[in-house]
Amino acid sequence: MVGLTGPSRADAEALDASNPLAGFRERFVGLDDRPYLLGHSLGPLSRRTRDRLAQLTDDGWGGRRAQGWSEWLDLPTGVGDRLGALIGAAPGQVALGDSTSVQLYKLTAAAVAARPHAEAVAVAADEFATDRYVVAGVADSHRREVRTVATDGPDGPITADTVDEACADGAVALVVASLVRFRTGAMADLNSVTEAAHRRGALMLWDLSHAVGAVPIELDGAGADLAVGSTYKYLNAGPGAPAFAYRASRHAGDLPQPIHGWFGHADQFEMGDAYRPHGDARQLVVGTPPVAGLIAVDEGLALHEEAGIGALRRASLAQTDFAIDHAEAVLAPLRVAVATPRAAVRRGSHVALRHPGAAALVEHLLAEGVVVDHRRPDVIRLAAAPLHTRFVDLWDATEALRTLLSR
Amino acid sequence: MVGLTGPSRADAEALDASNPLAGFRERFVGLDDRPYLLGHSLGPLSRRTRDRLAQLTDDGWGGRRAQGWSEWLDLPTGVGDRLGALIGAAPGQVALGDSTSVQLYKLTAAAVAARPHAEAVAVAADEFATDRYVVAGVADSHRREVRTVATDGPDGPITADTVDEACADGAVALVVASLVRFRTGAMADLNSVTEAAHRRGALMLWDLSHAVGAVPIELDGAGADLAVGSTYKYLNAGPGAPAFAYRASRHAGDLPQPIHGWFGHADQFEMGDAYRPHGDARQLVVGTPPVAGLIAVDEGLALHEEAGIGALRRASLAQTDFAIDHAEAVLAPLRVAVATPRAAVRRGSHVALRHPGAAALVEHLLAEGVVVDHRRPDVIRLAAAPLHTRFVDLWDATEALRTLLSR
Repeated sequence: MVGLTGPSRADAEALDASNPLAGFRERFVGLDDRPYLLGHSLGPLSRRTRDRLAQLTDDGWGGRRAQGWSEWLDLPTGVGDRLGALIGAAPGQVALGDSTSVQLYKLTAAAVAARPHAEAVAVAADEFATDRYVVAGVADSHRREVRTVATDGPDGPITADTVDEACADGAVALVVASLVRFRTGAMADLNSVTEAAHRRGALMLWDLSHAVGAVPIELDGAGADLAVGSTYKYLNAGPGAPAFAYRASRHAGDLPQPIHGWFGHADQFEMGDAYRPHGDARQLVVGTPPVAGLIAVDEGLALHEEAGIGALRRASLAQTDFAIDHAEAVLAPLRVAVATPRAAVRRGSHVALRHPGAAALVEHLLAEGVVVDHRRPDVIRLAAAPLHTRFVDLWDATEALRTLLSR
Repeated sequence: MVGLTGPSRADAEALDASNPLAGFRERFVGLDDRPYLLGHSLGPLSRRTRDRLAQLTDDGWGGRRAQGWSEWLDLPTGVGDRLGALIGAAPGQVALGDSTSVQLYKLTAAAVAARPHAEAVAVAADEFATDRYVVAGVADSHRREVRTVATDGPDGPITADTVDEACADGAVALVVASLVRFRTGAMADLNSVTEAAHRRGALMLWDLSHAVGAVPIELDGAGADLAVGSTYKYLNAGPGAPAFAYRASRHAGDLPQPIHGWFGHADQFEMGDAYRPHGDARQLVVGTPPVAGLIAVDEGLALHEEAGIGALRRASLAQTDFAIDHAEAVLAPLRVAVATPRAAVRRGSHVALRHPGAAALVEHLLAEGVVVDHRRPDVIRLAAAPLHTRFVDLWDATEALRTLLSR
């Protein structure tokens, strides 16, 4: 299909016509013919979510008001269990609330405090800024050293070997890494990396922000310890929607998170003298949960359940394959390098293109209605989010970039 | 006006007719003739807020999507400055985001870490559960003792004297207390209590959850250090809306909050190696802010600005006076005690009634459409939130309680 000139728009249209998930696109609000390729940044709004939020303002907050708490109180863990099913977590281990950064802090601080004799915390190279800052902040306040886990080349994921190397002396309390790298879209191997950390006596905390809803994940199956992730990307829960935290049941007792809010108490309305931590994921909840955001997560999950993560992954791989083929055929001669790994098992759901003029190029693309984003210094990102992304969106964006670079 | 039988419903109607704020009630959605007296728990939804949230789903998240971040990024501090004006805080000191519990944790941990030689943290007696739990959790992880600041009798506020007593040895890093007590509605004296803490070398953290939007507050004028508060009560920002944190400018350098998220960085999108704290309230922001909640806070503040906190306070005092008069006349003979202080300067904006059967009474009242709440063991709360509360609401609730108790 891919020649020196790359696939044609007709090829893209044919792929859209045979895409079993193509029908989901009409479930969303406000999409038009212009490419919106930021599923990895802010997923669009679904019609059902819009309706559920209107119902909250009409019948919930605007109607029964405070009596709504009888059903809202359990949303953080109820929606958490539903999200758990998407990431291979049995009930009682996932809670929603707070931002991803706060969730990261809670679990990182829990792990470091629980390993008083471990001298270090390790974080993946080129990890997303907030992960690095949170880890360094916790390490500093506990007087621990911060180590870096190398990636497999500048664009690849961390591996069992690089984790083994960083933790070889057995002095690492915790390894923090994204399953899918925010910059290049490279995906680590959940099982072997988790095992490598455990072998060296470290706990593993996965940031699933760029992975949840985009790739199949089996946390319990991997023997995972801790995970966090955001819901406003592939889960379409809206700007600033609450993040999630996962803590394996076996750690509920030994890794209590340190922010002792009333929602995490074993009996919230007892309001007794001492904080008694709840025995399951409820302890991960801190304060009054953001109801609108939780309802949006719930609806985002419903769409994912209906489509199925297996079908989503197949469509995503087909789309990112297509985008990479196209970019290699038509953009490589224009000094654009594909940073995303070619092997399917090493790839999340977005494609990263490197060009020295990335910042200005993205400005131009946005002005033309081609919505992609830029990460310093030289990366352009295009996401395949098959609930709404079309092959023609990817084709149009790549061609728009070719036109710009050919001027 | 108040005889042995208390005020009449006609008295209440006359007071509503002459209430200069009465017109604000029609700005809200879903209020009917039944008393809704939970302004201290979950303020109702305003029409403007409903419209702004619909605009977010239609034009923002549902329209421009990720490009909306160009204006959303600054909401936590922009709306923070607007909220600051309501609590006497000059710009650059207030930020919104996270729950009240998380805000409390951030500022408590900051204060304790900054006073390594202080042995103790003090918290008000009968303080709200999450405040006590958060303080105890931080104290425990820093190996500090927790002390209690006594209240002026079982129902009154903490005072300069009781703070002085708790901090007499100069070993207290921080005093945490609500300005208005969640249970009895008793209000402390902001100025003298803050001064008393400072005189003994302690910092003062005020929880303004039951005060903001209900009583005039001048944080800068009082020389306050730190404050937090929720926005879903008198500010009508909806269930789980983001809380605020205030840190006086003089402490921006010496009290950095400990959760080092990318939003608190001096240059967020630099994503450089090290966390460089922002120089003002932006450092209090951690992760991606909840946009819908921030917009709702913004609209709640607009209503308060229009009414004016002076007029709100005058109406609130008139309403709580009326409710207390009524309760003392008709409920006292039925074994109901008014727990809220009688002196205006010692009173927030809700009235607490004590009765041994409070729990069952509230169940009955709710079943009759009289919306008040219960706090263990024996308190019934009725709020005056003059943007929407009517004198007849308070009269009807009190009479409903009298009827129940007279059976």
